[in-house]
Amino acid sequence: MSVYEHGDRYSQLKKKKFSNQILLDFSANINPLGYSRSVKKTLLSNIESIVHYPAPQDGELQRAIKEYYNLPSHAGILTTNGAAEAFYTLCQYLRPHRALFLAPCFSEYERAVRSVGGECAYFVLSAKDDFQPDTEKLASRLTGCDIVFIANPNNPTGGLWPQKALEYFIAQAAAQKCFVVLDESFLDFRADYEDFSAQYLLGTYDNFCIVHSMTKFFALPGLRLGFVVGTQKLVQKLSYFQQPWNVSTLAQLAGIAALGDIEYGEETRSYVHTERVYLQQELAKFSSWHVYEPTVNFLLLELRVESGLTAFSIQENLLKRGILIRNCDNYRGLDSRYFRLAVRRREENRILVQTLRNLKLK
Amino acid sequence: MSVYEHGDRYSQLKKKKFSNQILLDFSANINPLGYSRSVKKTLLSNIESIVHYPAPQDGELQRAIKEYYNLPSHAGILTTNGAAEAFYTLCQYLRPHRALFLAPCFSEYERAVRSVGGECAYFVLSAKDDFQPDTEKLASRLTGCDIVFIANPNNPTGGLWPQKALEYFIAQAAAQKCFVVLDESFLDFRADYEDFSAQYLLGTYDNFCIVHSMTKFFALPGLRLGFVVGTQKLVQKLSYFQQPWNVSTLAQLAGIAALGDIEYGEETRSYVHTERVYLQQELAKFSSWHVYEPTVNFLLLELRVESGLTAFSIQENLLKRGILIRNCDNYRGLDSRYFRLAVRRREENRILVQTLRNLKLK
Repeated sequence: MSVYEHGDRYSQLKKKKFSNQILLDFSANINPLGYSRSVKKTLLSNIESIVHYPAPQDGELQRAIKEYYNLPSHAGILTTNGAAEAFYTLCQYLRPHRALFLAPCFSEYERAVRSVGGECAYFVLSAKDDFQPDTEKLASRLTGCDIVFIANPNNPTGGLWPQKALEYFIAQAAAQKCFVVLDESFLDFRADYEDFSAQYLLGTYDNFCIVHSMTKFFALPGLRLGFVVGTQKLVQKLSYFQQPWNVSTLAQLAGIAALGDIEYGEETRSYVHTERVYLQQELAKFSSWHVYEPTVNFLLLELRVESGLTAFSIQENLLKRGILIRNCDNYRGLDSRYFRLAVRRREENRILVQTLRNLKLK
Repeated sequence: MSVYEHGDRYSQLKKKKFSNQILLDFSANINPLGYSRSVKKTLLSNIESIVHYPAPQDGELQRAIKEYYNLPSHAGILTTNGAAEAFYTLCQYLRPHRALFLAPCFSEYERAVRSVGGECAYFVLSAKDDFQPDTEKLASRLTGCDIVFIANPNNPTGGLWPQKALEYFIAQAAAQKCFVVLDESFLDFRADYEDFSAQYLLGTYDNFCIVHSMTKFFALPGLRLGFVVGTQKLVQKLSYFQQPWNVSTLAQLAGIAALGDIEYGEETRSYVHTERVYLQQELAKFSSWHVYEPTVNFLLLELRVESGLTAFSIQENLLKRGILIRNCDNYRGLDSRYFRLAVRRREENRILVQTLRNLKLK
C-alpha cells in the first residue's frame, strides 16, 4: 500500500470486487468535474501525434504555463512526467544529505530524498494547532538540512501558508543555505491563488522553486504532467538529469488545452468551493469525528477516541458499499484515527454522507 | 541539435518551413506502417482512463510483455517512460564511475552516465571493419569500467552481435564486475529475433539487463514506453529511483494493445525487410557513397571523399525538398561524411531515391 495507495487500490478494486458496481473514489484528490472538454477534444483529434517524438522543453506548453500563471519572464520552467518526477529530479540534482519534512505530508517527497541516500528529519505538526506549523520553530530546525519540502496547502491537512510566513521562511532557509521545494499543486483550486503563491518571490530568492502538478486540478493523473518553476539556471541544471522526451506528446497537448480553458478553471473553483462547504457542514453533524478546516478539494477527519472507531474500520465498511476513502494511518504524524475525503460532485457527496449515516455513526 | 535532433527538428521544421508541405521524415527510425490499428482503437475508447492514476508495475502490461517476448518466469520487468528513462534510472542506481561505449552509438547512454558524474571511455569502431567490434579487444577494454552499453543492433551502424559473442562478452564483463546494459530496441524488426536476443542468458548472468524501447517498432515515440528486463532484484532496486506512476495510463493500454496485435508485428517485419532490400539496392546504384549492410529499419551511408559532398550539404538540399534525414556528423566516431536514413513506405522510399537522383548525384 503506502505510496501506491490511490492508483493501486483503485485499479485493483475495480477488477476484483467491484467490476459490476459503481465505485466512488473519494481517495484521490482529483477535480470532481473531470478534465476539461477541450482536453478530450484535443486528445481525440491528436492521437496521430504519438508517432512523433515529444517537443523539447522550450515549446508551446512552457509558454502556455508562463502565460496562465502570469510568471515573470525571467522564470525558468521545466515540465515533468507528473509532479512526482520533479521531486526525484530535484533530489538527483541537489543530492541532499539531510532533508526536513512536515509530518504529515505527501509521502513522495521522502521517497525521492531516500532514493539519493538522504537522511530525513521531521517537524511533527500538532493536532492541537490544527496542524499549522509555528514558522519560527520550523525555521530553527533548518540547521544542518540542505533541503526542505513545503506544500501550500499541505496534503492531507489542508494547512495554508500566508505569504508573509513563506517569505520569512524562505529567507531563513537562504541564510542556512537550505533549498526550499514549494509544492503548490493544490493552490489552483483557490480563487485567491495569487494571495498564497510564492511566485512573487521568484526574482528575490534563488534558494527555492515551485512545483506544480497538473494532474489534480486539471484531472489528468493518468496522463502525467507537472512542472517546476525556478531560476533559469536551476531549470537548466535539472534538465541534465532527465531524458529530453519526458513529457508525452498527448500530455503536452492536453496541458495546453487545459490551460486555455479559462471557463473550466473558474467553474471548478466555484463548484469545489460550494461542495467543500456542503461536505464540511454535513460531516460536522456527526459527533464521531472532528473535521479539520478544509482549504481546497479535500477534508481531513479525525475520529474521536470516544467513538471507538478506526479509520480502517470506516474504510472497510465504506468499501463494502463501493466507496473508497483514504485511510491516513500510514502518514507519519497521523494515526489510526485519521482519514481523508476528496470533494466530489454533489450527488456523490450526498451518497457518501448518506452511507455514513446508514453505518449508524453518530 | 545533438540529442534533440529528431523530435526537435521535426516539430520546428513542421512549423517554420513546411506548414503547407508534406515533410518526409527519414531521420527517425520509426515503424513505417505507423502504430497498430488496435492501438488507435484502444486510445480512442480509453481517453477516460486519464482521470485515474496509472497502475503500478505488477500489472497487465508487465504480463503482456512477459508473454509476448516469452520471458522466463523468474525475470523481473520494469516499465519505463520510454527506453531513455531506463538508461537514466540504471545510472542513478548503479552510479558508474567509468562507462565504456562503442563509438558511434546512441547518444542518450552517455548523457545518462554524465548525469551521475561518470567518466566516459570509448571503443572506436572502424569503418574498415564495417563498424563491427572485435569482441576480445573490446573485452580487454573493460578493466576499470563498471558499466558498458551495447546496442544489438547498434544504432546508427546496424551492426548485429551474434549470441556467442554476446555470451562471451557478458561473461568477461562479469569477471571484471562490470554491468552490461544491452539495448535490444531494434531487434523487434527482425523475424530471427530469438537468434540474437540475450534473453536466454537471463538465468545465467546477473550482471546484465536488456532494455527495450516500444517506441520504434510499435511507432509510439510520442507516448513514451520502454522497459528493462533483468533479475527481480535489479528491477526492485531500480524502482526505488523512480516515481511509482512513471508510465501513463494511455501508454500502458497502448502497449498492451500493440503487443496483442500479432499480425501487425508480422506485417511490419515482412514490410520493413522488403523495403530495406529495395532501399539498399537503389542506394547502391549511386557511386557518391557506400551503403553499410543494414540489418533493421535504417541504413548508414558514407559519402566517398571523391564525391566532394558532406552529409550537411545532402541534408540541406533534401530539406529544401521537404525531406528530413539524420546527419551523423555529431556522432562520436563518425564525421561529416555520414548520414542515416530510416526505412519508410515504398512510395516514400521511391520519392527519396528519385529526389537524390534529381540532385544530380552520381
